Amino acid sequence: MIVPKGPDIRRLIAYVGQPLLLLFLYDVAVVLIYKVAHKEWIALPHIPVALLGSAIGIIVSFRNNSAYARWWEARTIWGAIVNNTRSYGRQVVTNIRWQKDGEEEAARMMQRDLIYHQIAFTNALRQHLRGLPPLDELHGLLPEDVLVDLAKQKNIPFAIQIRQGDLLRIALERDWVDSLQWSALDATLNDFADAQGASERIKNTPMPKQYTFYPQLFVQIFCLLLPLALVQNMGWFTPLGSTLVGFIFLALDKIGRDLESPFDNTIYDIPLSNMSRGMEINLRQAIGERHLPEPIQPVAGVLW
Amino acid sequence: MIVPKGPDIRRLIAYVGQPLLLLFLYDVAVVLIYKVAHKEWIALPHIPVALLGSAIGIIVSFRNNSAYARWWEARTIWGAIVNNTRSYGRQVVTNIRWQKDGEEEAARMMQRDLIYHQIAFTNALRQHLRGLPPLDELHGLLPEDVLVDLAKQKNIPFAIQIRQGDLLRIALERDWVDSLQWSALDATLNDFADAQGASERIKNTPMPKQYTFYPQLFVQIFCLLLPLALVQNMGWFTPLGSTLVGFIFLALDKIGRDLESPFDNTIYDIPLSNMSRGMEINLRQAIGERHLPEPIQPVAGVLW
Amino acid sequence: MIVPKGPDIRRLIAYVGQPLLLLFLYDVAVVLIYKVAHKEWIALPHIPVALLGSAIGIIVSFRNNSAYARWWEARTIWGAIVNNTRSYGRQVVTNIRWQKDGEEEAARMMQRDLIYHQIAFTNALRQHLRGLPPLDELHGLLPEDVLVDLAKQKNIPFAIQIRQGDLLRIALERDWVDSLQWSALDATLNDFADAQGASERIKNTPMPKQYTFYPQLFVQIFCLLLPLALVQNMGWFTPLGSTLVGFIFLALDKIGRDLESPFDNTIYDIPLSNMSRGMEINLRQAIGERHLPEPIQPVAGVLW
Amino acid sequence: MIVPKGPDIRRLIAYVGQPLLLLFLYDVAVVLIYKVAHKEWIALPHIPVALLGSAIGIIVSFRNNSAYARWWEARTIWGAIVNNTRSYGRQVVTNIRWQKDGEEEAARMMQRDLIYHQIAFTNALRQHLRGLPPLDELHGLLPEDVLVDLAKQKNIPFAIQIRQGDLLRIALERDWVDSLQWSALDATLNDFADAQGASERIKNTPMPKQYTFYPQLFVQIFCLLLPLALVQNMGWFTPLGSTLVGFIFLALDKIGRDLESPFDNTIYDIPLSNMSRGMEINLRQAIGERHLPEPIQPVAGVLW
Amino acid sequence: MIVPKGPDIRRLIAYVGQPLLLLFLYDVAVVLIYKVAHKEWIALPHIPVALLGSAIGIIVSFRNNSAYARWWEARTIWGAIVNNTRSYGRQVVTNIRWQKDGEEEAARMMQRDLIYHQIAFTNALRQHLRGLPPLDELHGLLPEDVLVDLAKQKNIPFAIQIRQGDLLRIALERDWVDSLQWSALDATLNDFADAQGASERIKNTPMPKQYTFYPQLFVQIFCLLLPLALVQNMGWFTPLGSTLVGFIFLALDKIGRDLESPFDNTIYDIPLSNMSRGMEINLRQAIGERHLPEPIQPVAGVLW
Repeated sequence: MIVPKGPDIRRLIAYVGQPLLLLFLYDVAVVLIYKVAHKEWIALPHIPVALLGSAIGIIVSFRNNSAYARWWEARTIWGAIVNNTRSYGRQVVTNIRWQKDGEEEAARMMQRDLIYHQIAFTNALRQHLRGLPPLDELHGLLPEDVLVDLAKQKNIPFAIQIRQGDLLRIALERDWVDSLQWSALDATLNDFADAQGASERIKNTPMPKQYTFYPQLFVQIFCLLLPLALVQNMGWFTPLGSTLVGFIFLALDKIGRDLESPFDNTIYDIPLSNMSRGMEINLRQAIGERHLPEPIQPVAGVLW
Repeated sequence: MIVPKGPDIRRLIAYVGQPLLLLFLYDVAVVLIYKVAHKEWIALPHIPVALLGSAIGIIVSFRNNSAYARWWEARTIWGAIVNNTRSYGRQVVTNIRWQKDGEEEAARMMQRDLIYHQIAFTNALRQHLRGLPPLDELHGLLPEDVLVDLAKQKNIPFAIQIRQGDLLRIALERDWVDSLQWSALDATLNDFADAQGASERIKNTPMPKQYTFYPQLFVQIFCLLLPLALVQNMGWFTPLGSTLVGFIFLALDKIGRDLESPFDNTIYDIPLSNMSRGMEINLRQAIGERHLPEPIQPVAGVLW
Repeated sequence: MIVPKGPDIRRLIAYVGQPLLLLFLYDVAVVLIYKVAHKEWIALPHIPVALLGSAIGIIVSFRNNSAYARWWEARTIWGAIVNNTRSYGRQVVTNIRWQKDGEEEAARMMQRDLIYHQIAFTNALRQHLRGLPPLDELHGLLPEDVLVDLAKQKNIPFAIQIRQGDLLRIALERDWVDSLQWSALDATLNDFADAQGASERIKNTPMPKQYTFYPQLFVQIFCLLLPLALVQNMGWFTPLGSTLVGFIFLALDKIGRDLESPFDNTIYDIPLSNMSRGMEINLRQAIGERHLPEPIQPVAGVLW
Repeated sequence: MIVPKGPDIRRLIAYVGQPLLLLFLYDVAVVLIYKVAHKEWIALPHIPVALLGSAIGIIVSFRNNSAYARWWEARTIWGAIVNNTRSYGRQVVTNIRWQKDGEEEAARMMQRDLIYHQIAFTNALRQHLRGLPPLDELHGLLPEDVLVDLAKQKNIPFAIQIRQGDLLRIALERDWVDSLQWSALDATLNDFADAQGASERIKNTPMPKQYTFYPQLFVQIFCLLLPLALVQNMGWFTPLGSTLVGFIFLALDKIGRDLESPFDNTIYDIPLSNMSRGMEINLRQAIGERHLPEPIQPVAGVLW
Repeated sequence: MIVPKGPDIRRLIAYVGQPLLLLFLYDVAVVLIYKVAHKEWIALPHIPVALLGSAIGIIVSFRNNSAYARWWEARTIWGAIVNNTRSYGRQVVTNIRWQKDGEEEAARMMQRDLIYHQIAFTNALRQHLRGLPPLDELHGLLPEDVLVDLAKQKNIPFAIQIRQGDLLRIALERDWVDSLQWSALDATLNDFADAQGASERIKNTPMPKQYTFYPQLFVQIFCLLLPLALVQNMGWFTPLGSTLVGFIFLALDKIGRDLESPFDNTIYDIPLSNMSRGMEINLRQAIGERHLPEPIQPVAGVLW
């Protein structure tokens, strides 16, 4: 995610910079051909640019609405992971209690285990969504033999979930939680399964291909036709009209494409690293740890 | 679902290829009639094409919004089946436990039975939605006498659900799950019933017929009128304007129609085979099976 | 609901047939008055038709979006009734169990009673929404003395629900369901109450009257003005432009109006008869009945 | 809520009647100044009316979408109150049962008390939302000393809710409901709290002021400029164009403004009186009362 | 939040006042240059302003829809906090009951503690969202040693939640609530965690930067070009057209930007202070306090 600052004009121009420059040069070339080389046949003042513009507007604005909805849904899903992680942390810390003397240490270890599994889950899910090896971020959180076991699994976040379910059942059998407390924790695990599946849905089902390529194609053709339509009437000022209109359409198209795939390791992604680090800090502090990792900061204006 | 690759220009053109070619030939014919055969009466420069274009834009963009919403809802429903299947798998594996010596094997068999019924449910639902015989994919998952029984049922996924409910009640009676664990599993069965019903809703209630046929009709008439409106002013360049505008409208119309019916055995469908295979792999691995089926791969760029 | 078939051109034309014919005749009359009777004052080429068209487009497309949303919400509500009916059927059949010898017959009777009440509920709700006498469809499902009692009630589906609640409490008192199973069934009854209320909401709160009448009024005025605006420039071809544009606007308006009231006994309704029959079949088969009613088939292309 | 009848043309005209008449007179005045007084400078044919129209269209259609969403959300919230009131009634009547001899009368009184509190709640909430004194409608429902107590409370519907919670706890302590039945009733009380809060949200957070006043201002200015733009070309027919376009924009603006505030004691409100009376009838009949109040009927075509 | 009053014309103008004045002066300057200084080259009548206008309309209306959705979602989240706070208050007051003699005072103190923690939670969350020190508003609500502890926490509202969870577990251990009552209260704490996370999501994930800056940039360029496009035809009346169109676009852009960030300490914010004070009054009255704080009133027409 790009961290907002003041309206940095250079960034804004740079955003669609290269195609915009090419468009400008092309627009100038058209004018030169018309005005200097006197090839008047290049002017096509009757191209129905308004009709073209509104037809392209329909397809681009539909695509952008959908792309933004995907991006915001992705953010909301990870927001739900944050919320549920906090509730899970609260429930683990306040509800898991030893009943007999001598059990305190084991119960606290169980709390710690559950919390570390949850940190492992968010890290593994992040890596899984980014197409990176999920196990890389789990060292120090789970015992090495567990990691060896996990390495055999096809879906590592799901396998961690099953382990969490096992731990909770053991806590229930030992009477460290009562039935309803167990039930609340189990329901929270379901919510994590939902969030994982929803993230995978967005990752694995891109927008229909037709909505991805057509807008770009049409915008490019439109930009090529614009100066031909304007040059007869606007003469030397043609680039003022056609580059500006082209700028807006190029920007519209690029904005939509950038938001389309919120889990694709681009600078427009949801900041998964920052969010899973934030959850880790919340969870570690909930079990009383003092040595906390630092929040992830933006690098060159981009928060990962 | 068409698997996205780079912007393959041939595919894009092919997408609306045949009607586009016909349109181009028609546009050229109009120009020839006007410029070569000098039948000037063919030119109708005052047809209100902008008005027509925006009226068609209203109906097409409404249809496309709704069609995309149907497609994404269908995908979300099957995403929910994936999520709930995983939660169901986790609950079956971690919560169903034998209480007495000698019960272990029977309890593990119960776990396996519940898991296989769920695999059967997703396979049967997929076939049911595609209008194919649901039983064909259940051999090896359910005993043959059960299949004979199921063959008498009108709604096979629902009948499998009732069998799952029976199994869960038996597990509760044997004390292999406690009341709340049973309750969580029963609630998950409800979620599957909701997902089945929602899939059937999309399958059985197509978009209102009027929204399916009118946009296509209007776009076709519009394409026929466009060159007549442009030929007087654009002359030999008429096809540049009218074929391009026609291309955009034809593409808009086709995109919408393709997404309208996400369970219709077309290449634009939700990839149900791939998704139910993925669930099968998750479930089989959850009960410790080592011999896993392969994920379903795209065939000729289409994932089924 | 109109059952979709191939694009039957006659049906499509018939859909807006009569007003379209009148419009065409009017357009021709305008041309004749202008070209034959030479009443040139009838031409008003400067009427701002584009402005009118886009203003009408705003109001019509808003109305149609809302109307479609109502229609789809109605379908989704009845879809939820289907889903919950199946879950209710599953829960009744698998969870209601006799505990002592000699209770089997009474318990099975209770299952049958609960199932028949649910069939009665869906039938009564359908009739209630259609403004027909709810009791007519309940003979054979509920005992005659119950029907006499129900006849005194103002809201019969709600009264059936209270009876279902009574039955469930008796099952709980007899220990045929445990507390949590009772709770799951009670929650399902709440879902039916929600679905009933939501259906009544759509039935009893039509779209704001202003959204129903204005679009039609404006479209009609627009159709009257169109040929006056076009006749000077298009001459004999005027009907080609004005009838076509009029056709699109008339179709847009009619599509919206048809979807506005999905429980109004028109051919565009949600197919409530078909859906409640489908639920009846599912429920009867769940309790093992063999003599099942037939699904309701479309009559003359319309599914009720 | 205005009760829909046939398309009463007078009502429709009357809806925007006065401003429409003023607009018409103004349009005529402009024509007279131009054609009779020969003040040609009044004509401004180059005002970009299409551009103005589409800019105003953007702001008006956004406002209207939001206003309709608010209105429908308000209706849905009250629909949820209806649904939950019925479920609450069913649960009170079927689940609250005496366990010992001699308790029957007290238990029935408790049922009656809970039902009357709920009638009081809906009445108090209606009055609260309408800015009327909530206690006025509670006489006969709650004992006078309770009313005296309630009079000291700042939020009377919330105070009634607390009393309902107290009653339910007492029922639980007396063993008239079991834990899960109590839990279901308590959850229903939460739903009422949600509905109350959601109604207050819509009531207390009007649409952003900018969206309320700007559309009206822009539409008015637009109406003033329209005849100036058209008079040169349309001459005596100017009012035909400008009054009609103005009519559409005035209607669009008014429709939006009417729906914006669905709890504001206007004729466009959600019919709260009718709905709370309907709930009262359902609840009274559920506890077997025979002397039922009449449903509230529309007065002069308006249902309150 | 700006408190709505009558349509105060000065406020409306002031809303976009300064840029509007600059635009007007610029428009006049263009006319003077053209008409007085006779620099005719300044006129560019063929700039495609309609095309520019509709392209800008697409991007602005998309941005505004999203901004309004964010603003209303923020309001809805805080509405949910209000609803859940009331339910929490009701549950604490009615369900937490001493079982043995002599426990009454301690139980009442527990009720008071839970209520005060909730007041502290809403205050801390408000400050946290506004970027102000959360502890400042907690004096008098929580004991000083608790505040010292909290000061070490990174996320103070979350730490208060953990303390609430601890208190509830203690109440459960002492048998002051039964399991299901505890479960209902625990679920309400989850809802607060969800609301906190959702508020942070809106606060920390601004709209994509591209949607914030581009609309403003394009509107400004558009305003600069408008008089150049109109001056040749409209002459001295140019400002009438270009300032008015510019006014609408400036207003549209500003409205969107104002709603984009509903937790940013601007006058367009959700009135968090007012809402948390309202909850405090509800909660204090629920435990019978008589000395209630005053509701927060608007200051200079703005409710904070």
